[in-house]
Amino acid sequence: MDFTSFLTSLGTSFVIFLVLMIVFAFLSSRPGNNVVYYPNRILKGLDPLEGGYKSRNPFSWIKEALTSSERDVIAMSGVDTAVYFVFLTTVLSILVLSGVILLPVLLPLSVTDHGMKTQTTSNGTFSELDKLSMANITAKSSRLWGFFIACYWVSIVTFALLWRAYKHVSWLRAEALKSPDVKPEQFAIVVRDIPHVPQGQTRKEQVDSYFRDIYPETFYRSMIVTDNKVVNKIWESLEKYTKKLARAEAVYAGSKTTAKPEGTRPTNKTGFLGLVGKKVDTIEYCNEKINELEARLESEQKVTLREKQQDAAVVFFSSRVVAASASQSLHAQMVDTWSVFDAPEPNQLIWPNLKIKYFQRELRQYLVYFIVALTIFFYMIPITFISALTTLDNLVKYLPFIKPIVNIKALKTVLEAYLPQLALIIFLALLPKLLLFLSKFEGNATFFLTYVALKFFIGYGLELSRIVPLIIYHLKRKYLCKTEAELKEAWRPGDLGYGTRVPGDMLIVTIVFCYSVIAPVIIPFGALYFGLGWLVLRNQALKVYVPTFESYGRMWPHIHNRILASLILYQITMFGYFGTQKFYYTPLVLPLPILSLVFGFVCAKKFYPAFQHPALEVAANTLKEVPNMELIFGAYIPPSLRSEKIDGDRVEDALSQASRTTPV
Amino acid sequence: MDFTSFLTSLGTSFVIFLVLMIVFAFLSSRPGNNVVYYPNRILKGLDPLEGGYKSRNPFSWIKEALTSSERDVIAMSGVDTAVYFVFLTTVLSILVLSGVILLPVLLPLSVTDHGMKTQTTSNGTFSELDKLSMANITAKSSRLWGFFIACYWVSIVTFALLWRAYKHVSWLRAEALKSPDVKPEQFAIVVRDIPHVPQGQTRKEQVDSYFRDIYPETFYRSMIVTDNKVVNKIWESLEKYTKKLARAEAVYAGSKTTAKPEGTRPTNKTGFLGLVGKKVDTIEYCNEKINELEARLESEQKVTLREKQQDAAVVFFSSRVVAASASQSLHAQMVDTWSVFDAPEPNQLIWPNLKIKYFQRELRQYLVYFIVALTIFFYMIPITFISALTTLDNLVKYLPFIKPIVNIKALKTVLEAYLPQLALIIFLALLPKLLLFLSKFEGNATFFLTYVALKFFIGYGLELSRIVPLIIYHLKRKYLCKTEAELKEAWRPGDLGYGTRVPGDMLIVTIVFCYSVIAPVIIPFGALYFGLGWLVLRNQALKVYVPTFESYGRMWPHIHNRILASLILYQITMFGYFGTQKFYYTPLVLPLPILSLVFGFVCAKKFYPAFQHPALEVAANTLKEVPNMELIFGAYIPPSLRSEKIDGDRVEDALSQASRTTPV
Repeated sequence: MDFTSFLTSLGTSFVIFLVLMIVFAFLSSRPGNNVVYYPNRILKGLDPLEGGYKSRNPFSWIKEALTSSERDVIAMSGVDTAVYFVFLTTVLSILVLSGVILLPVLLPLSVTDHGMKTQTTSNGTFSELDKLSMANITAKSSRLWGFFIACYWVSIVTFALLWRAYKHVSWLRAEALKSPDVKPEQFAIVVRDIPHVPQGQTRKEQVDSYFRDIYPETFYRSMIVTDNKVVNKIWESLEKYTKKLARAEAVYAGSKTTAKPEGTRPTNKTGFLGLVGKKVDTIEYCNEKINELEARLESEQKVTLREKQQDAAVVFFSSRVVAASASQSLHAQMVDTWSVFDAPEPNQLIWPNLKIKYFQRELRQYLVYFIVALTIFFYMIPITFISALTTLDNLVKYLPFIKPIVNIKALKTVLEAYLPQLALIIFLALLPKLLLFLSKFEGNATFFLTYVALKFFIGYGLELSRIVPLIIYHLKRKYLCKTEAELKEAWRPGDLGYGTRVPGDMLIVTIVFCYSVIAPVIIPFGALYFGLGWLVLRNQALKVYVPTFESYGRMWPHIHNRILASLILYQITMFGYFGTQKFYYTPLVLPLPILSLVFGFVCAKKFYPAFQHPALEVAANTLKEVPNMELIFGAYIPPSLRSEKIDGDRVEDALSQASRTTPV
Repeated sequence: MDFTSFLTSLGTSFVIFLVLMIVFAFLSSRPGNNVVYYPNRILKGLDPLEGGYKSRNPFSWIKEALTSSERDVIAMSGVDTAVYFVFLTTVLSILVLSGVILLPVLLPLSVTDHGMKTQTTSNGTFSELDKLSMANITAKSSRLWGFFIACYWVSIVTFALLWRAYKHVSWLRAEALKSPDVKPEQFAIVVRDIPHVPQGQTRKEQVDSYFRDIYPETFYRSMIVTDNKVVNKIWESLEKYTKKLARAEAVYAGSKTTAKPEGTRPTNKTGFLGLVGKKVDTIEYCNEKINELEARLESEQKVTLREKQQDAAVVFFSSRVVAASASQSLHAQMVDTWSVFDAPEPNQLIWPNLKIKYFQRELRQYLVYFIVALTIFFYMIPITFISALTTLDNLVKYLPFIKPIVNIKALKTVLEAYLPQLALIIFLALLPKLLLFLSKFEGNATFFLTYVALKFFIGYGLELSRIVPLIIYHLKRKYLCKTEAELKEAWRPGDLGYGTRVPGDMLIVTIVFCYSVIAPVIIPFGALYFGLGWLVLRNQALKVYVPTFESYGRMWPHIHNRILASLILYQITMFGYFGTQKFYYTPLVLPLPILSLVFGFVCAKKFYPAFQHPALEVAANTLKEVPNMELIFGAYIPPSLRSEKIDGDRVEDALSQASRTTPV
């Protein structure tokens, strides 16, 4: 692809983005679409169009996003979302600060050199961009010092901004944990690997007496973890039939027209997918099923509470500091018994995982580390080798048998322009898509910048305009939803989804880092990606998405480490690239990756522990009210064990009466 | 050296040991020597000759040592000593269990083979021992399977006994920490890296308010660490002159005979070493000096408490559990501020070290790790290479230029016999004595077994008979000591000194492990060394040595890891040795070192945390009395800051009035 067609593709993408923005402005101003464009505000009970939004122009959302503070984001979308914006801001700042120096310094250095002349004899249409890159520098040229210094500049800017960001996120986390609001997870710890119950005691008595001995004043109550597989299944069926009943009743009510006041009772078949089997009256059938399941649920709840106790428990304390301190103290002389953990939010506690034994957990963890380490290792080697092979001349030199192929003029032009990008893309794609590798190789030859342009303009355009969710919502509303609950389900916004966003962003970070010095023209595109992302997602965070959990920024250390890993990859790539340019002082690049490792180590030492455990000074902050321990305890009872008949107290009673087990 | 002279040397050593034992029996029965042979009992206020010891036979101490229980050892000499005996017992058991299988199986295999014949043509005097070793096995022989299985047997026995020992030591530690006695270090934590004092607060107020916020009910008091360099110096001079005065007064009193009732006042010169300068009356001079120093001490104490505060403190809690939990909880959001540690025993707290900053400490630690890792790395390489070169034939093959030298018959005989031992000794000596290496090389050619025989018979004989301390004590008593305090100083027994004992024992463990399968005859000698050591040191622990500190077995993880390291070294050596014997299944030895690493890792995971921090279940045990916090606090005041005028309360008062500092 030549420079003109790249610009065309860029222009097209931009036009599509503009169109989507106008579509968004138009659609979002229609009150019927409020539940698609303002679900977060609606769920929080706020007026979606507050502040004279009606008279807005198509760009007012931009102003709103830009003027919103971090405090607004936390209030609307939680600390995790705010931390994601810290990530976007940090990367954006790194790119802007790098670009401000690199573009005016390196581009003139490249443009005025003639390193490419000696290598290419092609028609030159592709070289407009390459002329702006380090590839245009004559080998051994003293101009390489400029690129060398740029290499350090990018690293130093990254260190400084990452340090600031980590400090800021740590502060955000501390502020959130300090909050005077009562949060159940701050009053509980999870205990695992409880030893066998001693003769003559119940599990409950064992746990209670153990913790009451250690915390005589602040221990509140314990909740023994049970195996809920069966009870969950019954509860899910019950939920299903309850929904089905509500739907059938809504359909029945809807069928009562003035013409036919008695209505039509809905029916269904009981067999496979409702297609075969006996035809029954749905309302009656559901009522029967619900009655049957309720009875079964009740008896299964009792059985579960009594007989399916695991060797794990949630322990509650009446003091936030004690809970914080308990979660990080060694309780038992043998580490593989009575191991303690921070309690996650009630809905984030995965009961079935709690019973996995200590050494099995450790083994799983190290197995994962081992695989990751292997992957990185086998991934670093080709990257560094490939960086030395990125020029076609080198390839021909090392693999002389490809010479006849690359001498085809058209192919040569294409290859020379895309080879470095191609190599990098392939290897970056290699990691997550190991198996798809070979099949992708053939048709993966698309110019990288086009990919970014497409990704950010069209991707963020679709994100902002929410065309797909809008269409789905309207279709569902018209043809499927019968009850209020179903309608609410149809526009439920979901969360921002860092899990899928961050890796994609990281790919961009890695690519932009790696090319920042080699081809600084990439920097504005990177900056545009993160700037646009910031803007669009700010709007979405404030108005659309609703977080499903809150980790108080616990993912930051991982993001931090990944940015640092990209930086190291970039530094190693530069080491290789300086080598191919025959720069005598190439070894002077080596202190950079070492510096990065030391930086990462210092950050981990200084900041990380506060992300593992709550610091006591933070937990010691005063609460705005005496915590209602009943409520805190109740929050951790899984829905399938809740019942009007078995409330919090009853759960404890049931647990206390649990069969007395004998040690095995 | 041939076999006969080895036996002669062994016999001589044994006779010397017997003689020393009889000397011990004779000398220890004389009441005048009680302070040398029973100082531990005397200092504990026990009758040295309790239980009809007077009518004892020369071997009764053996019976007493054998019948003493672990509880006796802990009562007389503390947990650390008991842990040292666990070490001795464990190694002894490993050797006995290994020997029971290895000797009857491997010796016949070796003796009935003829592997040496093909190699040597010498007169054979040296080969009596070598015939009993793996060197006498024909290469590629299927008899090597026997040695291979033995190799696994030794490893498995070691794993089993090390596991048992770790468990036992962990239990010993828990029992000791559970003790209902009040120990000051269980109620205190050390706090370092305290941030700058905020405006308008003293350091003391800052620390107090910080901990009172977190522990409103259990925080007792804090003690700010000060820079005691000057005050210590004054206090030491004061001590010196106090002792000198007491001595002078004793001399003066002694000179008052009936013939000369007014006595002679002692004098001394004030100059260098008391040899030059003005001649003064010692008693008057000391009194003057003491008065002067007391005044200086008092004013310096005030200055120290007020102006030399560091950014560290000892914080006291009224609850043992809270102190245990506080010492392992993250207090500050930033880890390099308010870092907390277990308090050591009062006399083990090194005040000057407390002010070293967080990252400097980390740096020092990693520097040490790095050096150790480097050393081990450069030490493993020669060991493995040397193990392949230990036969003279191999040496000649690889280094043909030494052929003329080794063909001298006498030299050849010597070399062939000693080469393996020589190589090992050199490399084991290399590590601690890197610089002495070259000079030692020439005269280091002594047969290894002789060295062990000498070391254990004569070393333990001297240890038991305490001839050297006895002579020194009697000389001092007769010619030097004038006061009771000086006399007590003369027989003060010191402690068992694990610091110097364990490395020596470890050398034996390593050598015996490495040769256990190659030349199993070494096993009885190893067993004898540790058995004799156990017996003699048991006597010394019960009657002689007095521990100066108590770490509740904290050194065990290190001992454990070192035994494991010896085992791995042995396994790698065997891998090399099987290789030189052309054993086809040599790679099957490789799972052993991996197994050892996994074993070490599992042990570290399961047991080690309880050696780093006290487990809360242990600290939660009830105390026999309400702790006297005054006394606990007072125990931590360094002697140089104690005074009748400045007691515990006054220290706090003084600290509270300390100058209000402003943040830097």
